[in-house]
Amino acid sequence: MTPSVLLADLAACVGEGHVLTGNDADPYLTDWRRAITGRALAVVRPASRDEVAQVVRRCAAAGVPVVPQGGNTGQVAAATPDDSGRAVVLSLLRMNSVRNIDLDTDTITVEAGCVLQAVQQAAREAGRLFPLSLGAEGSCTIGGNLATNAGGTQVLRYGNARELALGLEVVTPQGEIWHGLRCLRKDNTGYDLRDLYIGSEGTLGVITAAVLKLFPLPRAQRTALAVTSGLHEALSLLQRARAGFGAGLTAFEVMSMHCLWDVTTAFPQQRLPFSATAEHSWCVLLELSDNESEQHSQDQLEAVLSAALEAGEVQDVVVAMSESQSVEFWTLRESITLALALAPACVKHDISLPTSRIPEFVRGTDQALAAAFPGVEMRVFGHLGDGNLHYNLLPAPGAVEADIQRLVHDRVHAAGGSVSAEQGIGQRRIEDLRRYKNDVELALMHRIKTALDPQSVMNPGKVLPPWP
Amino acid sequence: MTPSVLLADLAACVGEGHVLTGNDADPYLTDWRRAITGRALAVVRPASRDEVAQVVRRCAAAGVPVVPQGGNTGQVAAATPDDSGRAVVLSLLRMNSVRNIDLDTDTITVEAGCVLQAVQQAAREAGRLFPLSLGAEGSCTIGGNLATNAGGTQVLRYGNARELALGLEVVTPQGEIWHGLRCLRKDNTGYDLRDLYIGSEGTLGVITAAVLKLFPLPRAQRTALAVTSGLHEALSLLQRARAGFGAGLTAFEVMSMHCLWDVTTAFPQQRLPFSATAEHSWCVLLELSDNESEQHSQDQLEAVLSAALEAGEVQDVVVAMSESQSVEFWTLRESITLALALAPACVKHDISLPTSRIPEFVRGTDQALAAAFPGVEMRVFGHLGDGNLHYNLLPAPGAVEADIQRLVHDRVHAAGGSVSAEQGIGQRRIEDLRRYKNDVELALMHRIKTALDPQSVMNPGKVLPPWP
Repeated sequence: MTPSVLLADLAACVGEGHVLTGNDADPYLTDWRRAITGRALAVVRPASRDEVAQVVRRCAAAGVPVVPQGGNTGQVAAATPDDSGRAVVLSLLRMNSVRNIDLDTDTITVEAGCVLQAVQQAAREAGRLFPLSLGAEGSCTIGGNLATNAGGTQVLRYGNARELALGLEVVTPQGEIWHGLRCLRKDNTGYDLRDLYIGSEGTLGVITAAVLKLFPLPRAQRTALAVTSGLHEALSLLQRARAGFGAGLTAFEVMSMHCLWDVTTAFPQQRLPFSATAEHSWCVLLELSDNESEQHSQDQLEAVLSAALEAGEVQDVVVAMSESQSVEFWTLRESITLALALAPACVKHDISLPTSRIPEFVRGTDQALAAAFPGVEMRVFGHLGDGNLHYNLLPAPGAVEADIQRLVHDRVHAAGGSVSAEQGIGQRRIEDLRRYKNDVELALMHRIKTALDPQSVMNPGKVLPPWP
Repeated sequence: MTPSVLLADLAACVGEGHVLTGNDADPYLTDWRRAITGRALAVVRPASRDEVAQVVRRCAAAGVPVVPQGGNTGQVAAATPDDSGRAVVLSLLRMNSVRNIDLDTDTITVEAGCVLQAVQQAAREAGRLFPLSLGAEGSCTIGGNLATNAGGTQVLRYGNARELALGLEVVTPQGEIWHGLRCLRKDNTGYDLRDLYIGSEGTLGVITAAVLKLFPLPRAQRTALAVTSGLHEALSLLQRARAGFGAGLTAFEVMSMHCLWDVTTAFPQQRLPFSATAEHSWCVLLELSDNESEQHSQDQLEAVLSAALEAGEVQDVVVAMSESQSVEFWTLRESITLALALAPACVKHDISLPTSRIPEFVRGTDQALAAAFPGVEMRVFGHLGDGNLHYNLLPAPGAVEADIQRLVHDRVHAAGGSVSAEQGIGQRRIEDLRRYKNDVELALMHRIKTALDPQSVMNPGKVLPPWP
C-alpha cells in the first residue's frame, strides 16, 4: 500500500480534517523539552475507540508504525516519532469525554484524551477527589498519565497513576479491542494485563479509556514549611509525620536552600516565610489532609511540629494560616523548575532511592561531582516521602552533560535506586536502560514486546533498547 | 533423563532429606479443601534462591513440570499437581527468613516461605504494621499470598498483596534469576514485571523473595457493629464512613442476619450484642484505625455513627468498649465460615461487583435462585467496602452445585463483576475463565505465557484454559 492510499484510507476512517500533514502536523512532532523533532507520514486524530482500532489495523496492515500521543508533555520524548517519516502519530486529544461517574463505587470512567485537570474538576463537581496532580495537569492527558505511570505530588498518599486505575480499554497492536474497563477493587482472574499496559509508554497498545478511583474530598488541608539542618533530620521528621498523621500526610516535599534562593532571586515578589538560614539546610513542605475540620488539622499539625521542634529535628516552622498562604508555599516549590529554566544550563536527574539511603547518597554524590566537575552547583529538590529526588545541577562551562549523568546514575544504580523515577524511558533514556538493567530483565521485556507486538507496530524505538 | 536420575540430581542440589516421595510427599499433594489430590515425582524443598534456580533448571532440562507451593492454603488448588505423577512439587517452606527491615524506607524484605503471621510479627516488633490479614495467616506464606494476590480484611485501606509489594526476586521457567528486589516507591524503567508475576499463580515463575511495604502502627483501633435494614442503607453508611474517617476506615464488613444466627447456633458461647432484628436486615462490622488516641477514635466513631442513626441508615449500633469486645465482634465475623462448614453442603462464591450494583444484584440473584432451586437458603457476607461478597448458599438436597454456580456467575458477569475476587483461578475455576473472558484477553494471556514459558514448565494446567 502506498502512503497516499493509506492516508486516504485513514481520512475515510476519521474524517478528512483529522489527518494532518505539513505545517498542521508540526506541533505534534516536537517533544515537550523542544530537544527532539521527528517526522511523520501524518498525524491522525480519531474520535472514538473504534476509530482508533481501525487506524491501528490499517497501519499494521501497511507496516506503518503508530506513535500514540496525549498532551505531548512527556519528559523523555516517548510520544515523538523518529526522523524516518514512516510513522503515523495517533493523537488521542479528541477522545476527551467523561463517560461515567459512579458515586457508590467511587469511580470515574474517562476517555484517554481527557486533560488531567478536567478529570480533577469533574470529580470535584461530583463531590469527590481525583488525587493525581502534577505540573503539567493543565495539558497532559489521562491516557498519557497512564501510559507513563505518572507520579506527582500526592504519590505518598495515593500512589502513582498505576494505583489509581481500576480498569482499562486498550487497542492492541493488531487493532483488536481489549475490554478491560472494570471498576472492581478485587479481581483475581488471570494475568494482570492492566498493569502491564500502564507504564509501557504506548509500546504494547493504545489506552483509549480508563476507570479511575475516586476518594472523599478532605474537609481541611494544612500546609507547613519546616527548616531542617540536613536530610537525616528531614527523614526523622518524615517518620514523625507518618506516625502522627497516618494517611493524612498527603505531601512531603524537600528543597535545598539554594533552590529557594534561586526562586526568590528570579521572582522577587515571592518571599521565604522564615529568616535567613544556613547554606546547607533544607526546607520541607508538608501537607496534612484531614477528614474532620480546619481546627482539628491545625491542632494536629501543631502537635507534630512542636514535638519535632523540641526534638531538635527542625530549626524553624511556619504553618500556613490561610489557603492563600498554602498556595504561596506550594508556589515556592513549583517555581523551582521555572527558576532553574533561567540558568544557562541545568543537568536534570529524576532519580529514586531507598529512602534511608538518601542522605548518604546526596552527601557522597555532591562530593564526587565537586571533585570531578569543579565549580558545579547542586539544585536538589523532590518528593522525599517517595524517595524521589530531582537531583539537578548547574555545571561550570565546559562540563559534558553525559559525563555528569553517567556519574550520578552509576551512583544511583549502586545504591539500589532508579534512574527514572517518574518520567519513564521514551527515547531519551534507552541507553540508561541498556546500562543498568541486567540481561534477564531486558530479555523478559523483549519477550513480552515480541509476544504482544510481533510486527513492532506500536511506538518502535521507545523504552526497549535494540536486542540481539 | 530417567526420573531416578533426575531425583538423584535434585537430591544433590537440595540434600537427600529434602526430596520427598511416598508417604512423606502426601501432605503436599492434596489441596486445602481436601477435594483434589494429585500425584508427583517428588516434593523438593530447596533452602535458597540458588537452589530453587538449580531445581527449576534441572526440571526444565528434563521436561518435568514444576508446581510451586507455599503454605498450601489456596482455595482453587493452584498448588496441587495433576494426577499424571510427572511433576515436581517445589515447596518454598524452608525459605523462611526475614532478610531485612529498613525503618526509614518502611520496608521489610522476606523470603517466599515466610508465614504471613511471622511477617506481621516481625513488623510489629520493629514498631511497624504489615497490614495483610486473612483467615489462613497462621499457615499461608507470603510467596503464596503474592502468587495469588491475596486479599483479606484490610484491602479497603491497604490494598491487596499486589499493592503491598515493592519488589520481587523471581526464578524464571528457564531457571534464571530476576533480581527485582527493589524497595522503591517510584521506578518507571520499563515494563511492570512485578505485577505480572503477582497473581500469576506460579505459572510464569517462582517468587523466591519480596520487598514489602510497612506502615505506622495505629495508636488506636475501634470496632463497631451496626444493623441496617438493607444493603442500600449499608452502602450509605459506607459512604458516610469513608467521608468521615478517610483512610482511617480499615474494615467495612457486611453479614446477613442468617449468617450471624448460624454462628450463635453453632457456637452458643458467642452472643449478638444487639437485640433481635428483622430477618432481612444486615450487620456491618466497621473498624476505625486512628493515629491520634483512644479518645479521639471513640469520639470519631460516635460522631459518624450518631449521624447515621439520625439519618435512619442504621437501626442499632454497638461500639466495642474494649479490645476484648473488638475481638468478640471480629470472632463473630470470622466464625461464619466455620459455622457454614457444619452445614451438609454449602455452595460458595467469591465474587466482586461494582459496589453500587450490589444491592440490586443480591436482590435479583436471591430471587432467581429461589425460583430455580426451591428451598435454597442464602448465607451472604463479605468485604462490602471492596465490593467483594462471599455469596454462599445452602441448597436443598438434589440441587446440582455446578448449576447453581452457573446461575450466580452468569449474573455476576452480566453485572460487570468478577467470578473470582480473591481466590484466583488455579485448577478449580479454569472453566469459568474460558466462559467469561473474551477471546482477546485469553489470547493476550496465552501469548504472555508462551513468551515467558515456551516449554510450559511452570505449573501447567493452572490459570489458563487450553488454547487452540
